[in-house]
Amino acid sequence: MTQLPTFSDIILAHDRIRPFIHHTPVLTSKSINEIVGAELYFKCENLQKVGAFKFRGACNSVFALTDEEASLGVCTHSSGNHAAALALAARMRGIPAYIVMPNNAPEIKKKAVAGYGALITFCEPTLAARESTLKTVAAQTGATEIHPYNCFNVICGQGTAAKELIEEIGPLDIVMAPVGGGGLLSGTALSAKALLPGVQVIAAEPAGADDAFRSFQSKTLLPSVAPHTMADGLLTSLGSLTFPIIMNNVDQIVTVSEEKIVEAMRMIWERMKIIIEPSSAVPLAAILEGKLDVKGKKIGIILSGGNVDLGKLPF
Amino acid sequence: MTQLPTFSDIILAHDRIRPFIHHTPVLTSKSINEIVGAELYFKCENLQKVGAFKFRGACNSVFALTDEEASLGVCTHSSGNHAAALALAARMRGIPAYIVMPNNAPEIKKKAVAGYGALITFCEPTLAARESTLKTVAAQTGATEIHPYNCFNVICGQGTAAKELIEEIGPLDIVMAPVGGGGLLSGTALSAKALLPGVQVIAAEPAGADDAFRSFQSKTLLPSVAPHTMADGLLTSLGSLTFPIIMNNVDQIVTVSEEKIVEAMRMIWERMKIIIEPSSAVPLAAILEGKLDVKGKKIGIILSGGNVDLGKLPF
Repeated sequence: MTQLPTFSDIILAHDRIRPFIHHTPVLTSKSINEIVGAELYFKCENLQKVGAFKFRGACNSVFALTDEEASLGVCTHSSGNHAAALALAARMRGIPAYIVMPNNAPEIKKKAVAGYGALITFCEPTLAARESTLKTVAAQTGATEIHPYNCFNVICGQGTAAKELIEEIGPLDIVMAPVGGGGLLSGTALSAKALLPGVQVIAAEPAGADDAFRSFQSKTLLPSVAPHTMADGLLTSLGSLTFPIIMNNVDQIVTVSEEKIVEAMRMIWERMKIIIEPSSAVPLAAILEGKLDVKGKKIGIILSGGNVDLGKLPF
Repeated sequence: MTQLPTFSDIILAHDRIRPFIHHTPVLTSKSINEIVGAELYFKCENLQKVGAFKFRGACNSVFALTDEEASLGVCTHSSGNHAAALALAARMRGIPAYIVMPNNAPEIKKKAVAGYGALITFCEPTLAARESTLKTVAAQTGATEIHPYNCFNVICGQGTAAKELIEEIGPLDIVMAPVGGGGLLSGTALSAKALLPGVQVIAAEPAGADDAFRSFQSKTLLPSVAPHTMADGLLTSLGSLTFPIIMNNVDQIVTVSEEKIVEAMRMIWERMKIIIEPSSAVPLAAILEGKLDVKGKKIGIILSGGNVDLGKLPF
């Protein structure tokens, strides 16, 4: 049976990555609190290195390698935050990062990953092409594959964000995170349940990409089929590691409309003066939907990232 | 002779306002540090209440009033961050705030000030109309006028941002702030010179609104004449209190182009994932202009605010 991480693994991960990560701030907004009638504490992983919580997991995975493993580098297929995170973590350890990206990835993402010194291999934009290309790269280089979420050390790294949040703020009634592949959610749930025994862990997911919701309800790992949402970090399916952790440690998964995601995103930009990507807005969107009983509660929310294309700004 | 504030007044101010303000985070960006070849520490007053450092000074002024004075309220003329800041501070003390605004002020600003419960009197958009209307309002109500920057308690409040920055980060080679009316700059300079005796205090000002630069060079208080800059928080002239503090405590004032303000603003949005207004970008713009010797230095920068109109966002 595959070993699942526990909170003690998250403590080890935190000690390992502490010198490399930003200890991100926890922000509050009086005006948003007034709107929702609750006390919200936002853990700002949009202010993390590479602009996303993904750096925690990538960093933990890279620095957990033995020197021998590390010397051959790491590899993954990703066009998003995980690729940039792995590239930077590898650079910090001074080892190569091989990233497989679809040839239609946005220029801005190609540049970001290349800017961190990664070696990019482009492939056709299909999952089959990405997986077979990655297999070839791994075979040629001997690099260790670091999966974006279905990976022991990645999950442990992601769990350090909730750990920091709870250590700073103290008791919370609810902890929320968005769910895509479930790396952030499973790490968050492990930390929250270990540190705050009475806490409720609630995940939020776009209705247009509701595989985690359906998997949770049916207690069966269901794939994401033709997902459609502006929250492009949440398109992926749960994995064989993240699904059981979520089943065991998450209390509820709620789905949200695209309309509420926009409303929540705008609210956070305007009132909190921070840039978040749509995926980050999904937990607040769930509160704005009115699907949760939050009145008077203390709620910790992980803002997952801030990587949006600012090419069209009005200045 | 008018009494000028000292650092001990800033300590008192800080004790007075601490329960009401946000202790804002200090953020760093590895990639911006690499671009400029220095270590920059950004004090994020864009994340302060009402989205600007102005809340510190307004709060100090409101809570420094005697109960008798306070019962009659406070007043000011402003269409910007000071109006919102004074309105919120007054609401927190449970006293009225009377704000004189030009009738052509942007809707978004009118709504913000009204939203904090202030009583707004509109007037023609001239300085003469604003001053005479304010005089009338003050006479009718008995409210205490709180000037946006040329005010003892406002200057002391603004100085608490640099105090927090230095207490958190420790020794710095340079502390920078933008300069408009000089409230932030004079408070910053008093704190920096008191806490770090060897520090250089450097102000940055748009070339299109360079009255502080000219006043500093000529050692004569010169008015701002037909200023033109996107940094709309920096259009005002220095005052009779801020000018002497600046002459005594600031080492240098540099001017920057509009082009570099845009570049700096975009750099902070994109790489730091925070929303700043153009005025906040002016110190980094000065560094990007290459006018300062910053190589290898530790530099504290006050990001003054984050109130920009997000009406034209691409989502």
